[in-house]
Amino acid sequence: MKKIPLLIIILSLQIPFALAEDGYRLWLRYDCVDNNAVLSTYRKQIKGFKVEGNSPTLSLVRTELEQGLAGLLGINVPQSNSVSASIVVAGTSKSSEINKLNLDARLKNLGREGFLILTTTVKGKKLIVITAPEEIGVLYGTFHFLKLLQTHQPIENLDIESSPRINLRILNHWDNLDRTVERGYAGFSLWDWHKLPDYIDPRYHDYARANASIGINGTVVTNVNANARVLSSHYLEKVAALADVFRPYGIKIYLTARFSAPIELGGLKTADPIDETVQQWWKDKVKEIYTHIPDFGGFLVKANSEGQPGPQNYNRNHADGANMLADAVAPFNGIVMWRAFVYDDKVPDDRAKQAYSEFKPLDGTFRKNVLVQVKNGAIDFQPREPFHPLFGAMPDTPLMMEFQLTQEYTGFSTHLVYLANQFKECLDADTHAKGAGSTVAKVIDGSLDNHQLSGIAGVTNIGNDRNWTGHPFAQSNWYAFGRLAWDHQLSAQQIADEWIRMTFTNNPGFINPVKEIMDKSWETTISYMTPLGLHHIMGWSHHYGPAPWIKDKHRADWTSVYYHQASKDGVGFNRSATGSNAIAQYAEPVAKLFGSRDQCPEEFLLWFHHAGWNEKLKSGQTLWEELCRHYYGGAETVNSFQQQWATLEGKIDKERFEQVKMLLNIQYKEAIWWRNACVLYFQTFSGLPIPHGLEQPENSLQYYLNLEFPYAPGIRPQW
Amino acid sequence: MKKIPLLIIILSLQIPFALAEDGYRLWLRYDCVDNNAVLSTYRKQIKGFKVEGNSPTLSLVRTELEQGLAGLLGINVPQSNSVSASIVVAGTSKSSEINKLNLDARLKNLGREGFLILTTTVKGKKLIVITAPEEIGVLYGTFHFLKLLQTHQPIENLDIESSPRINLRILNHWDNLDRTVERGYAGFSLWDWHKLPDYIDPRYHDYARANASIGINGTVVTNVNANARVLSSHYLEKVAALADVFRPYGIKIYLTARFSAPIELGGLKTADPIDETVQQWWKDKVKEIYTHIPDFGGFLVKANSEGQPGPQNYNRNHADGANMLADAVAPFNGIVMWRAFVYDDKVPDDRAKQAYSEFKPLDGTFRKNVLVQVKNGAIDFQPREPFHPLFGAMPDTPLMMEFQLTQEYTGFSTHLVYLANQFKECLDADTHAKGAGSTVAKVIDGSLDNHQLSGIAGVTNIGNDRNWTGHPFAQSNWYAFGRLAWDHQLSAQQIADEWIRMTFTNNPGFINPVKEIMDKSWETTISYMTPLGLHHIMGWSHHYGPAPWIKDKHRADWTSVYYHQASKDGVGFNRSATGSNAIAQYAEPVAKLFGSRDQCPEEFLLWFHHAGWNEKLKSGQTLWEELCRHYYGGAETVNSFQQQWATLEGKIDKERFEQVKMLLNIQYKEAIWWRNACVLYFQTFSGLPIPHGLEQPENSLQYYLNLEFPYAPGIRPQW
Repeated sequence: MKKIPLLIIILSLQIPFALAEDGYRLWLRYDCVDNNAVLSTYRKQIKGFKVEGNSPTLSLVRTELEQGLAGLLGINVPQSNSVSASIVVAGTSKSSEINKLNLDARLKNLGREGFLILTTTVKGKKLIVITAPEEIGVLYGTFHFLKLLQTHQPIENLDIESSPRINLRILNHWDNLDRTVERGYAGFSLWDWHKLPDYIDPRYHDYARANASIGINGTVVTNVNANARVLSSHYLEKVAALADVFRPYGIKIYLTARFSAPIELGGLKTADPIDETVQQWWKDKVKEIYTHIPDFGGFLVKANSEGQPGPQNYNRNHADGANMLADAVAPFNGIVMWRAFVYDDKVPDDRAKQAYSEFKPLDGTFRKNVLVQVKNGAIDFQPREPFHPLFGAMPDTPLMMEFQLTQEYTGFSTHLVYLANQFKECLDADTHAKGAGSTVAKVIDGSLDNHQLSGIAGVTNIGNDRNWTGHPFAQSNWYAFGRLAWDHQLSAQQIADEWIRMTFTNNPGFINPVKEIMDKSWETTISYMTPLGLHHIMGWSHHYGPAPWIKDKHRADWTSVYYHQASKDGVGFNRSATGSNAIAQYAEPVAKLFGSRDQCPEEFLLWFHHAGWNEKLKSGQTLWEELCRHYYGGAETVNSFQQQWATLEGKIDKERFEQVKMLLNIQYKEAIWWRNACVLYFQTFSGLPIPHGLEQPENSLQYYLNLEFPYAPGIRPQW
Repeated sequence: MKKIPLLIIILSLQIPFALAEDGYRLWLRYDCVDNNAVLSTYRKQIKGFKVEGNSPTLSLVRTELEQGLAGLLGINVPQSNSVSASIVVAGTSKSSEINKLNLDARLKNLGREGFLILTTTVKGKKLIVITAPEEIGVLYGTFHFLKLLQTHQPIENLDIESSPRINLRILNHWDNLDRTVERGYAGFSLWDWHKLPDYIDPRYHDYARANASIGINGTVVTNVNANARVLSSHYLEKVAALADVFRPYGIKIYLTARFSAPIELGGLKTADPIDETVQQWWKDKVKEIYTHIPDFGGFLVKANSEGQPGPQNYNRNHADGANMLADAVAPFNGIVMWRAFVYDDKVPDDRAKQAYSEFKPLDGTFRKNVLVQVKNGAIDFQPREPFHPLFGAMPDTPLMMEFQLTQEYTGFSTHLVYLANQFKECLDADTHAKGAGSTVAKVIDGSLDNHQLSGIAGVTNIGNDRNWTGHPFAQSNWYAFGRLAWDHQLSAQQIADEWIRMTFTNNPGFINPVKEIMDKSWETTISYMTPLGLHHIMGWSHHYGPAPWIKDKHRADWTSVYYHQASKDGVGFNRSATGSNAIAQYAEPVAKLFGSRDQCPEEFLLWFHHAGWNEKLKSGQTLWEELCRHYYGGAETVNSFQQQWATLEGKIDKERFEQVKMLLNIQYKEAIWWRNACVLYFQTFSGLPIPHGLEQPENSLQYYLNLEFPYAPGIRPQW
């Protein structure tokens, strides 16, 4: 970066291609601050930077500061070996410069991953200090500091302390070893198992860097519908190569454990968790894993659900299975994340009740290093679900949240749906387990029941598409998950604001309308897909598009009619005391609220109640009218998004503007599809006309019934 | 790009990331010329550019010149509306400026796709003119002109005429509708069928641009193992969207036609080509296709091969099937490419003979718009094959060449293998069909037998990996195919030279050693995989790694032992007169040459002859010794590539340097694997010791026999 007046002129004109916005950079775009006032202030305030130490993590800190400052300030910001004025100093308290500042008192409260960003004066020299108890905190603090510049925040007098509220902030990849991704809509798996361990795709580093920038500290790289082969030594070498890449970024690697692995890999006759040879096989296997990966995180397990093997195959319970694995990893400080997503069509009861029925009795019987991973709702990542009744119901067990970032039920990667609002609705929900204020967030961050171990998982929407997530706005769900995992008290709007600034622009003329679109997007999708508590009426198997007519499959709980229960007299699943009584799984007064036809929040009406087509809702309109208004209104709102977006042309790069424009067109087409198919289908039961003023669907119900999508993404290829 | 002294400084420092070399730009890197002398000369010689007209293709010309000149010259090169000195003028002879130059006499000889680049003086003003009879030629000429700058060629006095020697220069994608790619090693399919037609991935444009830059003018977007569904109207809308993107780049779209489509899509009882309802179904389907895609190119068909349906199912021959489709597309000027890659385990004869046996008798019976597409060799894209005996044997039929760019049998996308040498060996081979000089190239360019229709196809190595081809050097095979399709008289070395300059650097310290590596690479891979004419001894089904031991499969011609015929007395497939007599399919004196144990070129020895382990070869060494020397020598040469590459650090970007380094490590490991597995296996027959001075394999034969790769890429996912 020396003697380059010529070079400067030369390079500048390559920008038109060089910066073609393919979305690969995510929110980590360090383009020069385009507000001249802010820029010149920053240039005065930052004259150089200093990072002591050369550990892998501190080297990342140095590179990030070097590239981030050079990019954002648009000048070469030198490393300084002395501490002069206006220097950014980054390091742990062990580094000599920071040691002098006597910050230990403040640092010790930050915990292992927290950080402190402080403007301070040393010998009359004003410095910006980024420090933390551990190196990883310094990296987190560095990303936070650069975010301040990306979002044009004042850095005059910084005094920022931040620590994560949840220990384990983990991505779940439903990636198969052949690189197909179950419920993946952004291409295929990032993990090129064939070329590992010898070929390290540069993208592995970029993936880890993006995660570190939002505080994610763990990743499960294999599908919960697990393949035992990943536990073979041949594959463990590959996993170890990934772990080596992720380590400096503070990211631990986890694997899914197929419960029958002792049979498939070990050649044993059984996988019974009480069988000593089985226990020994797992102990030996775990020991082998740790020789490859000394900081291996542990296992995620889906057992006795949707046909997966598990302890119940041997008449043992989930705790028996989880504890066996927990005992194997305990000596190495590993953990087990045991999923509560279990249901069985042999059990005649309401599917929504099964997880609670099986797990609640086991509370207190799990080992200390086991977390039970519970989906936000009791069915399966529907557009909207009431919070899962297990939250608050297992005080003696650390419960881990499982959110779904990949849009299996919310429009794949073609619908703009900002999920932070969904996450927040669940996190802020009050379980009343220990009286008012017992929010789901307090359950999972461990504060309600004083658990040291706490965790949150997000089923990723990441694939090998150039922009990682397919839809440019799907990046916001990855980002929001990380931010909420770090601090669930942030609002969805705050997170959207910083994401838009970093990902697109600080231009308020873009930020405000886009923030509004994002804020409305989730509710809008619920309206045109599953309003008023409807659920699981998507296309058979691939879940693409509407299919409320699905019935007569080999298991009832994989059909739509099971969930909507539509008939001449009405629609909805009666889970009140007069029905499956699932509401009894909630604490009072929640049970009472959900159980009451009149008080039940209308967004959950058909989730908990079977209501008559002509019953009046709060609006004074009948259920049928409201249903139609939601379907039509949802589609219309998407149309308003299109119009809003069109006005933003020129405010951002052409590439992403056009991409989003095309995707909104698809979303509108599919919203109309949902609207027409559902209204026409439910009309066959209600026998009522589409309310006055709403256009008639252009196609017949039969037209929609005939649509086929054998190659819809996200399911195992059909041959 | 005005008033930006500040901006210049700002942007320049973003280059470090902005230009992170992910390989996406392929050979179309327009970074500023880094040789100051050359740069300042170019800047004097090019002051501006002018493109008349606003057609889609001429708009591409304008953009390419604008971005190319700005990037390469590192200054803003303005569009000029008047013709002043040192202007680049681009357009067809219809454009007023060029019309004045009276170049019609020269242009009319160039053909529909040729171009002319000329330095000329008008009213004392020196101009550079890029012109052509048609707009597409202007685009080709523009890419050629920019290449001159990319490769630092003098442009003082240009007078370049260029026309393609072959009409149809086509890529074959073996892409499935679920985005898996048969024999694909660079990720998955570029075609996101699910999001088409409404979402146009920007990458579709970049793909078409890259192809246009090397003169490729057609693409078959679906697998030859075809799926009839792509012919449904639902999918034709998607295909049409791709065709619309490709059209301005001069690229026609083609589809693979599944012969049984009339049954699967049309609900007919038969697909018999003589059945009138079948003929009518195809006529109607073709008409439908052309309503979607007015310039649809036509069909590629794999019939009665490897289980695919075809006319023989109805006791008709290949001509009956091809002609039926040809009649359907003829009214729209469409063509049919009918593959000669046919074999059948029911036919007891040598597999290598079957294509000739079935097609030779049909010569002259095909419609005028049919080409027979013949693989370079008679088996299946082996590392080295003698040219296919059909070349020269069907004078009354246009034969189309089928090369394989994707490295199914040459190390997937982890081995550095520059295939231009393989292509050239085949193109330059002399069939002697009409006496000496009847090269394969003259057969396929139509000159030998005066065919107007001529074609060449390359099975692509392109996937959705960020760098398109997985291995950075695999890009050279895509590039070389296009260049040879345009002009088969170019040498592999010339093509490597320009590719290296455009893709990496003009630094001779890099070019020369890398050119040497590329030039040796193919022969080297043959040595460590299949020396001396050995063939098809790769891993079962996925073809990954060595497996000469494959036997007892449900068809003999899918086993290794069928091809190498190893026994105590020797090894090799006797195709001489005393064996299968496949040599009789060649014209004299080729048949005599190949048929003679003594005169047969040793690179084809075991292809045509079964030779004794102790027979002496030209070197004076025995066959066994030579075999070992090849395996060991090949592996050693890869090691020398590694050492050579290590010396080039710093001469190119870190990203690609490291990628190639890692890949060469894999290639060396796998070369050793091939060497050990094959030598140990063949030793069980020869009973001879590994020659003195060659190290013993570290593992036992059993070790190699036990290796399993269920998720090797390029085959349909296994469940």
